[in-house]
Amino acid sequence: MRDFSSDRRWLAINTATLKSWSLEQVIAGCSRAGITAIAPWRDIVQQCGVERAAKLIRESGLTVTCLCRGGMFTTADEAGRRAALDDNRRAVDEAHAIGAGSLILVAGGLPPGSKDLTGAHRQVRDGIAALLPYARSARMPLAIEPLHPMTAADRACINTLAHANDLCDELGDGIGVAVDVYHLWWDPELPRQIARSGKRILSYHVCDWLVPTRDLVFDRGMPGDGIIDLRAIRATVEAAGYQGHCDVEIFSAQNWWKRDPEEVIRICVERHQTVV
Amino acid sequence: MRDFSSDRRWLAINTATLKSWSLEQVIAGCSRAGITAIAPWRDIVQQCGVERAAKLIRESGLTVTCLCRGGMFTTADEAGRRAALDDNRRAVDEAHAIGAGSLILVAGGLPPGSKDLTGAHRQVRDGIAALLPYARSARMPLAIEPLHPMTAADRACINTLAHANDLCDELGDGIGVAVDVYHLWWDPELPRQIARSGKRILSYHVCDWLVPTRDLVFDRGMPGDGIIDLRAIRATVEAAGYQGHCDVEIFSAQNWWKRDPEEVIRICVERHQTVV
Repeated sequence: MRDFSSDRRWLAINTATLKSWSLEQVIAGCSRAGITAIAPWRDIVQQCGVERAAKLIRESGLTVTCLCRGGMFTTADEAGRRAALDDNRRAVDEAHAIGAGSLILVAGGLPPGSKDLTGAHRQVRDGIAALLPYARSARMPLAIEPLHPMTAADRACINTLAHANDLCDELGDGIGVAVDVYHLWWDPELPRQIARSGKRILSYHVCDWLVPTRDLVFDRGMPGDGIIDLRAIRATVEAAGYQGHCDVEIFSAQNWWKRDPEEVIRICVERHQTVV
Repeated sequence: MRDFSSDRRWLAINTATLKSWSLEQVIAGCSRAGITAIAPWRDIVQQCGVERAAKLIRESGLTVTCLCRGGMFTTADEAGRRAALDDNRRAVDEAHAIGAGSLILVAGGLPPGSKDLTGAHRQVRDGIAALLPYARSARMPLAIEPLHPMTAADRACINTLAHANDLCDELGDGIGVAVDVYHLWWDPELPRQIARSGKRILSYHVCDWLVPTRDLVFDRGMPGDGIIDLRAIRATVEAAGYQGHCDVEIFSAQNWWKRDPEEVIRICVERHQTVV
């Protein structure tokens, strides 16, 4: 395992962690704190303007580990499918413009009114397959991020790394996975599936699972405040060949989003050195 | 698939669904409604007194599909392990006394202060192995119930039917699984794993996954109110050889637990006939 304790090179801050800040503020704040990489969400990139965001990021010297997020392939009809494909192509363009290492894909849940999980899985596979030629021509790697099973109905019906790996096997070059410890820590198959992912691991996200967890979406913990064995999972990911950043991504409506983002960054740095 | 529309023979009411009722009230209310089977929790059996509960159930003619629940094998120390084993033996006795078809086992989460998921898995396996001789001598089948991954930290670290099936393979006779659609519906492996379970399926539980879900424990839906394809899963379970009851088990602090239990039973009967 690499020694993270002496530098900040491998810490990236996901902009969702600093919810109240604009992209301009994230860039300035992370630069001040000696952070070298960020993982922005599309909404704040768009608010900044994609070209301006690209320019600011370039000038800052920050690495962009990934762009969050494309995907949401599951739709009720053909018009929805076309709209999703168009939007995902724009996401590829945006990721390319800001120099992101990959575009994160979140599958989408069951279409409204549907109980057809197998059909939703098929829509995700077909949606990625339709997007892939465009992403390949832009040389933008797509990273399927399996989300926690508690999101299967309304956010993402790809919920295990095994399923994401199966999709990679089926779809070929240009596609990999994002490993987020929050979504995957519980899975007894995780070590085996991380090894199977190998060089396909394009992005690695950390936060923590709190006990108790009070909300299905917005109650993630700061690394070290929960029960995930972060060091063990990172060792497994690195043993599989991953040499990229640890992106700290915390959705926390009642705690971290209410704090001063400068303080949040400071604690991210500290926890990255001590527990991630 | 059996035709459930013309009778109530295969509907069982889990007492957790009628939270405000004592066992005496559940027995009387279910009998009045023409329900032929119940699945009680240990707390209300103990409140009634085990011998008296056994007598009342016998006199009512009700079938007891299963007793909820033993398990909770994960502990911080040896004293905890012994206490869990003792309590599980008492649960076997209680299940035997009331003529339950099986004793449901919920694994237990991570021990307090622990991040060792693999160690917790081992404790569960060892705990069941220690209990099995006693259960076998009482001829009481043990049903491992995998719970939703969102419960892995604090309730149950066995979260997939694959994992429960693996434990059955390892531990041999006297052990099977409980399939609860709420916990397992999202798993792309579910049809394969149900087929693998086959005759090991000792108990089948239904409710529904609501969108949105507002609480990780107490926001389950009435069958038909959510997005689970109940008919499809039941067909898979029956194709695997299961010929027992459908136990309706609904934890619902904000809705069904606030209603008149007579109304809840009436709607369970209706939904059992139309959507389960």
